[in-house]
Amino acid sequence: MGDPGLSKLQFAPFSSALDVGFWHELTQKKLNEYRLDEAPKDIKGYYYNGDSAGLPARLTLEFSAFDINAPTPARCCPAVGTLYNTNTLEAFKAADKKLLLEQAANEIWESIRSGAALDHPVLLNKFLLLTFADLKKYHFYYWFCSPALCLPESIPLIRGPVGLDQRFSPQQVSTNKTKRRSSSFQSVEVLCFRDRTLQGVRDVTHSIIFEVKLPEMAFSPDCPKAVGWEKNQKGGMGPRMVNLSECMDPKRLAESSVDLNLKLMCWRLVPTLDLDKVVSVKCLLLGAGTLGCNVARTLMGWGVRHITFVDNAKISYSNPVRQPLYEFEDCLAGGKPKALAAADRLQKIFPGVNARGFNMSIPMPGHPVNFSSVTLEQARRDVERLEQLVEGHDVVFLLMDTRESRWLPAVIAASKRKLVINAALGFDTFVVMRHGLKKPKQQGAGDLCPSHPVAPADLLGPSLFANIPGYKLGCYFCNDVVAPGDSTRDRTLDQQCTVSRPGLAMIAGALAVELMVSVLQHPEGGYAIASSSDDRMNEPPTSLGLVPHQVSDWE
Amino acid sequence: MGDPGLSKLQFAPFSSALDVGFWHELTQKKLNEYRLDEAPKDIKGYYYNGDSAGLPARLTLEFSAFDINAPTPARCCPAVGTLYNTNTLEAFKAADKKLLLEQAANEIWESIRSGAALDHPVLLNKFLLLTFADLKKYHFYYWFCSPALCLPESIPLIRGPVGLDQRFSPQQVSTNKTKRRSSSFQSVEVLCFRDRTLQGVRDVTHSIIFEVKLPEMAFSPDCPKAVGWEKNQKGGMGPRMVNLSECMDPKRLAESSVDLNLKLMCWRLVPTLDLDKVVSVKCLLLGAGTLGCNVARTLMGWGVRHITFVDNAKISYSNPVRQPLYEFEDCLAGGKPKALAAADRLQKIFPGVNARGFNMSIPMPGHPVNFSSVTLEQARRDVERLEQLVEGHDVVFLLMDTRESRWLPAVIAASKRKLVINAALGFDTFVVMRHGLKKPKQQGAGDLCPSHPVAPADLLGPSLFANIPGYKLGCYFCNDVVAPGDSTRDRTLDQQCTVSRPGLAMIAGALAVELMVSVLQHPEGGYAIASSSDDRMNEPPTSLGLVPHQVSDWE
Repeated sequence: MGDPGLSKLQFAPFSSALDVGFWHELTQKKLNEYRLDEAPKDIKGYYYNGDSAGLPARLTLEFSAFDINAPTPARCCPAVGTLYNTNTLEAFKAADKKLLLEQAANEIWESIRSGAALDHPVLLNKFLLLTFADLKKYHFYYWFCSPALCLPESIPLIRGPVGLDQRFSPQQVSTNKTKRRSSSFQSVEVLCFRDRTLQGVRDVTHSIIFEVKLPEMAFSPDCPKAVGWEKNQKGGMGPRMVNLSECMDPKRLAESSVDLNLKLMCWRLVPTLDLDKVVSVKCLLLGAGTLGCNVARTLMGWGVRHITFVDNAKISYSNPVRQPLYEFEDCLAGGKPKALAAADRLQKIFPGVNARGFNMSIPMPGHPVNFSSVTLEQARRDVERLEQLVEGHDVVFLLMDTRESRWLPAVIAASKRKLVINAALGFDTFVVMRHGLKKPKQQGAGDLCPSHPVAPADLLGPSLFANIPGYKLGCYFCNDVVAPGDSTRDRTLDQQCTVSRPGLAMIAGALAVELMVSVLQHPEGGYAIASSSDDRMNEPPTSLGLVPHQVSDWE
Repeated sequence: MGDPGLSKLQFAPFSSALDVGFWHELTQKKLNEYRLDEAPKDIKGYYYNGDSAGLPARLTLEFSAFDINAPTPARCCPAVGTLYNTNTLEAFKAADKKLLLEQAANEIWESIRSGAALDHPVLLNKFLLLTFADLKKYHFYYWFCSPALCLPESIPLIRGPVGLDQRFSPQQVSTNKTKRRSSSFQSVEVLCFRDRTLQGVRDVTHSIIFEVKLPEMAFSPDCPKAVGWEKNQKGGMGPRMVNLSECMDPKRLAESSVDLNLKLMCWRLVPTLDLDKVVSVKCLLLGAGTLGCNVARTLMGWGVRHITFVDNAKISYSNPVRQPLYEFEDCLAGGKPKALAAADRLQKIFPGVNARGFNMSIPMPGHPVNFSSVTLEQARRDVERLEQLVEGHDVVFLLMDTRESRWLPAVIAASKRKLVINAALGFDTFVVMRHGLKKPKQQGAGDLCPSHPVAPADLLGPSLFANIPGYKLGCYFCNDVVAPGDSTRDRTLDQQCTVSRPGLAMIAGALAVELMVSVLQHPEGGYAIASSSDDRMNEPPTSLGLVPHQVSDWE
């Protein structure tokens, strides 16, 4: 800086400072808004002129970057840029960075030439950000560009640089009342304003002033060449990558990953899918055996967070190979209670789940209660508890191994107007069905079964293949009007539990959950059918039509 | 025993001594032979006359009890009895024990009256055993009966009892040459022979001799009343129960329990089911993701003991909710390799399984190998390893997430004539199919695809609904003759892995295994199709007809 005649103005590039909040917000935008949209987006960053001497000039992007109208933090200057977020790593690599830079440089040049930059100096701080967000791994690839025009001639310093205090009196500095000095047409005086805080006191005396000679080029209509793509950490020309998975809470990471997989369904395949309806549903699983385990597994896959098991059995040695929530160790010492072990396992699979287990019996018709005060009291408590559980959930799955155990929960769920999904296995047949929910006003006289109040003549529409409205559907006991009795007495080994092809429970369990999801996607939501019109109930539930409303095969 | 005139002969009942081996053998008989047959069975026990004084007379039943011709252990006396093994605990409790005892007493009485007992004294030792084997819990309920006739008059002792040495000289005793004393018609002299071993020396001097007066009753044709049902451990009249699960090795118990569940299928539902073909099959699972985990789970349910995984991926946070062999903990620190973790999990589910995992890539067409010596050598090793793995297994499951990764294993498996089961997912569609296996003699020219040598005109039989013989079936690439290329490049997030309804993988995985089982049950076994006749291939594979040979839905 000795001889002004020799000094030249040099370009100090911005360093990008991308906050974790920025990547988090980009993730949300990508998942819920951009999805597959690769169009450029306006984003906003800021820089600060009070950093300590020696620090590079940083351009900071944080969570607020996507809101162009967000206020700029105090004592910071805004910078507006363009985000190019690609859908694939290949597109990120293949992006024409030269072209992007030229476009940005042209805009800057035009704003200079038109005088717009004088009114809106922010136009001079335009930046580019090329990104690819690998949301499976939480790897964010990015390349920042702070375009700077490269004039063919260097820009000589006419005067300075000198400190603020060398040009102005302390009073002028402290009151900010400096006489504006008109630049000549050939030169411009520049104030590099520094507003540092030292030991709690703001100090602007680090600011410097210099005057430069404007080059000929500044009067040409042709945009000069530009540079500005940021070097990477190794000092080479290349993109950077941040791996946020390393600094994220693993449990939070698991939740995000599970959400992502579900949200991807909405991007292209079923844009109308209302995931919230599925994720927020509270499911009560009566039975934590082969069916219960498989239903729970499928619910987890759908992101359901609230799962409650009821079972009174313990895990036996033959269970783990068919009941996918248990392991050999769970069988030792007499076996853990299934309902509790199942809930524990769900937590191990996905810590974000709210899983509970109740080791209790479901009172059954045909299974006499010993009328001692103790067992009678226990039966009363079981009924009461079951009622509370049904009340506290949205969907009740009947997944027990006897017909009669399905009776009481079917009655309670119908009375509380909950959606009931019933699954039962034969050897190579199964039934997966939803119970109907009657219209409240027709309640009472003439009911054929707890959940099904419609006279038989009303049951069949014009075609067997037409959808039957939910309020006209029957329940498990509608087609089989024999009163339930004790089906567990006097059973041979092969009758004591359902002997079935091992694959069957997985198929039935999966279909039961898919059926629930389809019903929940219906415009009337399955358990809010009260004042339904028949026409709407005949609409297919979005495009999730894999599962028929009722499977007619019977165990 | 003071005044012989006052002494009376009294009955000392046998104590039952049922060996663990007896229960084990009963389990095997019940599972594999008796099944639901409740007809009485002849069984054989023995007793020993050399026990120490004070011990009760024990009638021992061990594993050999079911073989009536089995040799009786040295120095023991045989006893032949009848086993009444019931199918249910209710039948056990309801058995008419009075009637059974009367029948046995009658037989004994007849053998006395006819003189048969003189030629075959074993007829006097007839016993009964009423059992119920709860093979789910390894609880064995039993009630032993050693019938003794109750004469209305007591049997007075005419002489004795006296020790052997009081009646005979030491020389007579040691040479066993005692003069036979003819009993009078009204009395009989009885030698209670004791053959104890004391301090390594056999000693028969504990034997006693007495003479009794035969009662009038002995000449009546009417069978006297009988007693003999054994008291239980508490001294009351009731059955006994042994819980063998407590003394069994838990791992062995798990194996038996899993076997039991499978064998129950053969009792009534599919008596022709050849379980050995299923249990002994060696399965190679290419892919340990959503499909691989579900296929492995179903194989475990079918008792398959030999399962090998191949995968090159690590477990990510989104996996455990959809891939039922993984848990949250497996995702930490970058994630465990899937193939190894899957094999570990199978061991935790069922220690009897032989599960292995290979963390390796499958070379794929369209995915160029870098021709550096290192990666080229690695690709060669991968091909070689894959060939060895296919060679060492009976069934190859294609469960990967790209089309092109299925190519090389399909070719290798066809060349080695292995059964290939292929499963692939779409969003709400899936394909589960078996690959065809060509007839060896037609090999060579004219092949349309690696596994499918038949000209198209030959493909369709008289009806689309007729079964297509296995050797005429195509492979995954038959219907889609585009050469496989790299389908993983330039994929957006929702294309990077299969986005599918969560229940779909369970359904497809289960169907893939059920398809394998059905093919294995076919008279020609699926992978031994070489010289098949079309007629036999058109037979339905026993009654396991749930799964069609080929599902036509396509991903």
